[in-house]
Amino acid sequence: RRYCSRMALSQGLLFRQLFEPESSTYTYLLADTSTKEAVLIDPVLEPLDRALTLLHELGFNLKVAVNTHCHADHITSTGLMKKRLAGLKSAISKFSGASADIHLSEGDKITFGKQYLTVVETPGHTDGCVTLVTGDRSMAFTGDALLIRGCGRTDFQQGSAKKLYQSIHQKIFTLPDHCLIYPGHDYKGQTASTVAEERKFNPRLTKSLEEFVDIMNNLNLPKPKKIDVSVPANLVCGVTKSECPEKGRILIQSTTS
Amino acid sequence: RRYCSRMALSQGLLFRQLFEPESSTYTYLLADTSTKEAVLIDPVLEPLDRALTLLHELGFNLKVAVNTHCHADHITSTGLMKKRLAGLKSAISKFSGASADIHLSEGDKITFGKQYLTVVETPGHTDGCVTLVTGDRSMAFTGDALLIRGCGRTDFQQGSAKKLYQSIHQKIFTLPDHCLIYPGHDYKGQTASTVAEERKFNPRLTKSLEEFVDIMNNLNLPKPKKIDVSVPANLVCGVTKSECPEKGRILIQSTTS
Ligand SMILES: [Fe+2]
Ligand SMILES: [Fe+2]
Repeated sequence: RRYCSRMALSQGLLFRQLFEPESSTYTYLLADTSTKEAVLIDPVLEPLDRALTLLHELGFNLKVAVNTHCHADHITSTGLMKKRLAGLKSAISKFSGASADIHLSEGDKITFGKQYLTVVETPGHTDGCVTLVTGDRSMAFTGDALLIRGCGRTDFQQGSAKKLYQSIHQKIFTLPDHCLIYPGHDYKGQTASTVAEERKFNPRLTKSLEEFVDIMNNLNLPKPKKIDVSVPANLVCGVTKSECPEKGRILIQSTTS
Repeated sequence: RRYCSRMALSQGLLFRQLFEPESSTYTYLLADTSTKEAVLIDPVLEPLDRALTLLHELGFNLKVAVNTHCHADHITSTGLMKKRLAGLKSAISKFSGASADIHLSEGDKITFGKQYLTVVETPGHTDGCVTLVTGDRSMAFTGDALLIRGCGRTDFQQGSAKKLYQSIHQKIFTLPDHCLIYPGHDYKGQTASTVAEERKFNPRLTKSLEEFVDIMNNLNLPKPKKIDVSVPANLVCGVTKSECPEKGRILIQSTTS
């Protein structure tokens, strides 16, 4: 059962992974197959029509488009999607600094039909990074916090290697062994991993905190090609501010109540 | 249930999709999680080490590397893998004209632990194309016969649009609605579909046979960049003939007996 992904897909949950090659970004579509309510995680601007066509073909009603964080490498399609799909709400962490209809906090639930995603705050790549976990804890959408055999960089956008290490160890590696990891990016053609695999084989996260911080401080990566256009655009859902008003918290149930 | 992929993953079956971006090829890893016996479908030469590392990390014993057909766009890593992994057998259709340890026919089973793949002959893209279907008919690896919202070209390597149309309609579209389609390639970042979806939305296969033949005869596609090196190499498992001897049919159970 450890490496078995059968647990990944609960009854009545459709799951589809989509890839955008220019920025190597994964977008995820999740839907309740009976009510047809759907959620998109990290939609990308360029293949907007592909996502809309698929939603239309499958007869889904997109309720929420959620960004795991304010991306620096690609422009979200959340804002444009809202113009095309009536009733669609955008969502992002309240610590992201970005506008959205819904500002997410630890423990919030994003519901679609009988299904839901739980918000787990995993800062470190940015202050406003969240991991989204399915109700049965069989799948975790880790954004740029945990990647397959890697992790997001921590050298800009309030990045903190120490915070990222703690987020991954305390919030992601404590999920069930068989929980599937679906990252925000992959640059090597890998599509999924599991908590057990990353805990055992992730070359950075198997190190001590001190070694990890040292590795992250010495990556010397070039700045993302699109950062100067992406971050300002993503702070306002990929469109101008007036088109992406902040509308408060809708569709979210707090688990603290 | 129609679009639900829960059925896809039977108890004890690990499944992993891998992508090779240069030729946009998908490789699939399937393994029995209890016996640790594994099968690779369409391994690609360049990311050979990635596949071997993953097999090693997961503790899998690769029994069979199977090619859905003799590829024209990339070089298989089957031959080189055989040199690195003792006991590994290569497999391909008996109609492919290519050497392999195992020559596959309609109804053959490729077994790994308690799991198996059934061979379904789906000629048309080439004469030796097969679709591999999991024992529970929840997943079909269609190679270049059926692609997501597309299909393989039929203008070289004994291609026949009429044969391909019949193969897809009679052999693939007769699988269960919810059966997941995992293609040999995708050029648009799509990772999976279902029989029901392709039957309904595939722009070529929803046409009549006559219209389909007409479409396929007028694609005017350029020759694959690598065809002149790939086809000769793949006829001998990606290595020279002496390194890839034909060893008869091993590990295959005929369902006709
Ligand atoms: Fe990021
Ligand atoms: Fe092909």
